This record gives sequence, structure tokens and C-alpha cells, in this order.
Amino acid sequence: MVNYTDILAANDRIKGFVNKTPVMKSRTLDNMLNAEIFLKCENFQRIGAFKMRGALNAISLLSDEQKSKGVITHSSGNHAQAVALAAKLSGIKATIVMPKTSPQVKINATRDTYGAHVVMCEPTLDSRHKTTEELIKKNGYTLVHPYDNDNVIAGAGTAAYELLREVNGIETIFSPVGGGGLLSGTALASKGFNSNIKVYGVEPNIVDDAFRSFKSGNVEKNYDAKSIADGLLTTLCERTLNIIKQNVDEIITVSDQEILNAMRFIWERMKIVVEPSGACSLAGVLSKQIPITNKKVGVIISGGNIDLNEFFNLLQNKIK
Amino acid sequence: MVNYTDILAANDRIKGFVNKTPVMKSRTLDNMLNAEIFLKCENFQRIGAFKMRGALNAISLLSDEQKSKGVITHSSGNHAQAVALAAKLSGIKATIVMPKTSPQVKINATRDTYGAHVVMCEPTLDSRHKTTEELIKKNGYTLVHPYDNDNVIAGAGTAAYELLREVNGIETIFSPVGGGGLLSGTALASKGFNSNIKVYGVEPNIVDDAFRSFKSGNVEKNYDAKSIADGLLTTLCERTLNIIKQNVDEIITVSDQEILNAMRFIWERMKIVVEPSGACSLAGVLSKQIPITNKKVGVIISGGNIDLNEFFNLLQNKIK
Repeated sequence: MVNYTDILAANDRIKGFVNKTPVMKSRTLDNMLNAEIFLKCENFQRIGAFKMRGALNAISLLSDEQKSKGVITHSSGNHAQAVALAAKLSGIKATIVMPKTSPQVKINATRDTYGAHVVMCEPTLDSRHKTTEELIKKNGYTLVHPYDNDNVIAGAGTAAYELLREVNGIETIFSPVGGGGLLSGTALASKGFNSNIKVYGVEPNIVDDAFRSFKSGNVEKNYDAKSIADGLLTTLCERTLNIIKQNVDEIITVSDQEILNAMRFIWERMKIVVEPSGACSLAGVLSKQIPITNKKVGVIISGGNIDLNEFFNLLQNKIK
Repeated sequence: MVNYTDILAANDRIKGFVNKTPVMKSRTLDNMLNAEIFLKCENFQRIGAFKMRGALNAISLLSDEQKSKGVITHSSGNHAQAVALAAKLSGIKATIVMPKTSPQVKINATRDTYGAHVVMCEPTLDSRHKTTEELIKKNGYTLVHPYDNDNVIAGAGTAAYELLREVNGIETIFSPVGGGGLLSGTALASKGFNSNIKVYGVEPNIVDDAFRSFKSGNVEKNYDAKSIADGLLTTLCERTLNIIKQNVDEIITVSDQEILNAMRFIWERMKIVVEPSGACSLAGVLSKQIPITNKKVGVIISGGNIDLNEFFNLLQNKIK
């Protein structure tokens, strides 16, 4: 199993290529909660999300033969852009399988800004996997899975590690949970840094597979997938569940309304653009399910990629 | 005339009560411009704008008698909230004259969050001034003008001073210009710090009074006031024009479209919420009217207070 030493190694490996993201505070938030809240802002990470850390760590660890053949992943989200940019920085070829319903802006960013080869597939999980497997069989690509990959998890853990090194005395840490890569890395980094640190995963209650898996001990499925936190719709895998069972203290759930309220607080009061998935962890803190009074609390804000077209169309109409 | 020494004194006076705002960078921006751009993010200042600095400096310098009677200002914008909070922190009474057409959210914030006494007036400049003068005559309040005040200007200059102390070798600095308080303070701080630093004011071309005043040498008026940069609609006064004439290298203008484009870049690529007025300075940089290739460039991002109701209504509809 991936461990704390892997996170330290990942940190040394990638630190020259990722942003050491800022830790932000809010007087209002601290006063509301009677605690000290430290937001680790991975929305300020390259490509706008923590995914850059795992992708870069995993790609850096490939063999020369693997590098010469290139990497592949299937994603329409932040992981796609992370793999594309990490591959570009490493001078290797990346292929991204994206559902043909993906927003054109995301396809363009992945292809044009980061120079990846984009292959379209049908908008089903089945088509994604099949298309990816065929390309791997044909071209010998290495799959960089978004979370079912030890090196991706170790990379993700470097965000919490940076936070714990920067802010003395963090006692509690909250992370969003989707596939469980970020939460696994965060938990390994936190318990390795100081085994007394409490680690909580926060999940949208509409897609509460991690919450149920943590209770049952088995990887559970989701039956709905409409949460506004579109980065957290995936389910855990055996790998992430095992790490989470051993290193996470509790998983709590929040409603989409709570996520939206937390997101709005961050935008309006802290002037930071976060995506709904990125605000999920703060929603967990604000839900007060976990006592944090007078504690120093770390909160991983996972990303800030959100479609601003509608908003800027409204503004555009005001100047014409 | 207010000078560099006043800015150093203001900095010592207020530094324990204002945020030392972060300086943010973007690889994309630097590559686009072939320069090193440092954004001094006053949107992360208390009350969301640089106005906090000037209000706090001016109020701190009042006599005990003035403090016992309280302060007044007329504003519907960031200066109102700055005076309200600065007065609250100083334990004195603040009265804010606001046009009765002001958004309820701004009235509430000024009154409830910052505890000021809000007096409504007709939505004309004339009514604002008359209402304010009557209250001063009746109650002996001291007016804290948003820019026609040396201590407000010295406070505003501390933003640039912080930036110049933090980042070595800044050669050029851009500031938005409305009434000229921020530009005056920025110019005095920059020329005082190093007389070789070039200082540029950036103004919406719809309200280009400062551009014309700088050329003519007299305080010119605006004939339209519909710019999206609603914090920059005011005109210079004799005090700010005199400082600007002696310390600013040039005033350039940008269109509302350029302001909106700069604002969008900051939101989408840098994940920072800025208001149109706050993005005006970067619009000036991006307009390439001033050569900055290979230079270290400071950009004052003045504020981040923007109405997000419409945007969050769109998101609210997505979760219901």
C-alpha cells in the first residue's frame, strides 16, 4: 500500500513543477465558527485543480519505455487537463478519451492549450472504458487512472503535506471525496505527519457511496449522479477504500444546497473562484457535524474550474 | 502636499489592522506578455477593496474631539463600507449617506455588518452633498472624503508600498484611476521608493476625465457615466490632479470591453473574483499601449465587490 514515505518522495519529485498554493483565511469565517480555518487553495494550482499533482507524480515515475509510448486517460474533467499538461511538461504523448458531449471549451483546452490527442467516445461509462482499452491494446499506452493508482494518490497527498508544513498545529483536516484519491492522499499525509490529526471526508449526500462504503466495508454504488459537485460523482475503488478505512476518521455528507452556500461564501466573502466540488469540504465544516470549536482546521479546496459563460454573457449585455 | 513620509507613517499606523494582501502571478499572463506581472490583490483586503487603508488611516489621525463626535461620508460603494468598518474598529460612530436607490445588500452590509448609521437621500449628487452638509452642521461630524483627503491618499499608497517591499525590482506600476486617490497614493509610494519606477493610471474611456485633465492641467468633467467600472465614475479633484501631474508618467484609457476581457481572464485563469474597476489596471497592461517587454510590472487590483446574485440564481436553479 502507498504510504507516507511515498508522499514525501512525491513532494520532492514534483515541487519544482507544481504551484505551492496559497493558504487563505477569513476573519468572518473564524468568527462564525469560533475556530481557525485554513483553506488550502488548490484552485490556484496549475490547470486549476489538485489533479496536477497526481498526474505529474505518476507520469514522472513511468519507465523510459512507457514514456516513449505515451499515456492515456478517460475524463472530461480536471484530470484530463492534468494528464495533458503533465505529459506535455514531461515531453511525452498524451491521449485523452472524452465523451462527445463534453463542452467544446474543455475539448479545446485539453487539445489546444495542453497539446493532447483527444479521442471522442459515446457518452457512456462503457464506451469510455472500451475506447480506452482498445487504444491501450493497439498502441501500448499506459493508463493514468484518476484515483485507482498509488502514484496519483501519493501526488494528491502533497497538497495536505504542504499545508501541514506551512501551518503549525493543524488538528483537523477536511477533504472532499469522490473517487477517493484526494481523501486517501490527504489522510496518509496527515496521519503520517502527526497521527493525532483527525481526517474527515465530505461527500454530496446525493452520491453518498463513500459514506456507505465506509460503513459497510465494501465498495458501494451510486444510484443517482446529479450533484452540482460534478467532480465527486465517481465511486471509491478497492484501493482507495482500503486506505480510507485505515486512515480516515469519518465520512460526512452535505446537501447540494449546503455546497452552494459554502461556495457562495467563498466567492462573496473571500473573493476566490471555487467549483462546487471544491467547496464541498468547507460545506462539511459549516454543517457542524464535527466539533471544531477553538481548533486549527485545514480545509482542502480542491479546484476552481467552473463554466463562467453564462455569467459573463450577463455582463456582456450590460456594456452593449 | 502629502508625501512619501506620510505613506511610511500610514503603513506603520494601519499595518496591524489591514490585510497584507497577497501578490498573485500567472504563468499564462507572463507568457502572453513576455514580462513578469505581479498582481497586488486588494480584492483580498478587508471589506474587499483598498478603500479600507485610506479610511483607517484618516480616522486614526482624527483628534479626540473629532472622534467623540463621529465621522460621516456619502457613498454607495466600497468607501462606505471602509469608513463604517474603520470607525467600528476605532470605536467611534459613523454615519453613511446613501442614495435610496442603493442595493439593499449594500445598505444591510454597511448598517448590520459594520454597524454604521445609514441615512438615505435622493439619488442625486446634489442631494448627497446637501444631506451630508446638513448632518455635519447639526452634529459636528468629520467628513472622510473618499479621495479629496491627504490621509486617505496616504493610506491608499500603502498598497503599492507593500508590493514594492515584497517584490524586488518592480520597474513599472499600473493603477486604476477614478477620483485619483489610489493613483495618487500609488504614484507617491512608487516615486518615493524609487524615482525610476514608471507609474501609469488606467481609466475607462467612457469616463476619461483624468486622461483629459492630465493633458489640459485642469479638472475636467465627465459627460457620460455608464462604464461597467462603477468605482471609477468620479472625477479628479484639484488635490489629486496636482499629485498626479507631478508623479504619474501617463494616463491611458481602455474600453469597457477591454475591462470585461481582463476581468474574465482574472476570474477564469487565476480564479480570483475582481470587480470591473479592479480589473481596469490589468486591461491597461493588456492593451499594450505601454511597452513592458521583459519588465517587472506591478498591477494594483483595487477590489472584488461585485453583485453575484444573478450568477448564484443560475446555479440555484440547477439544484432544484
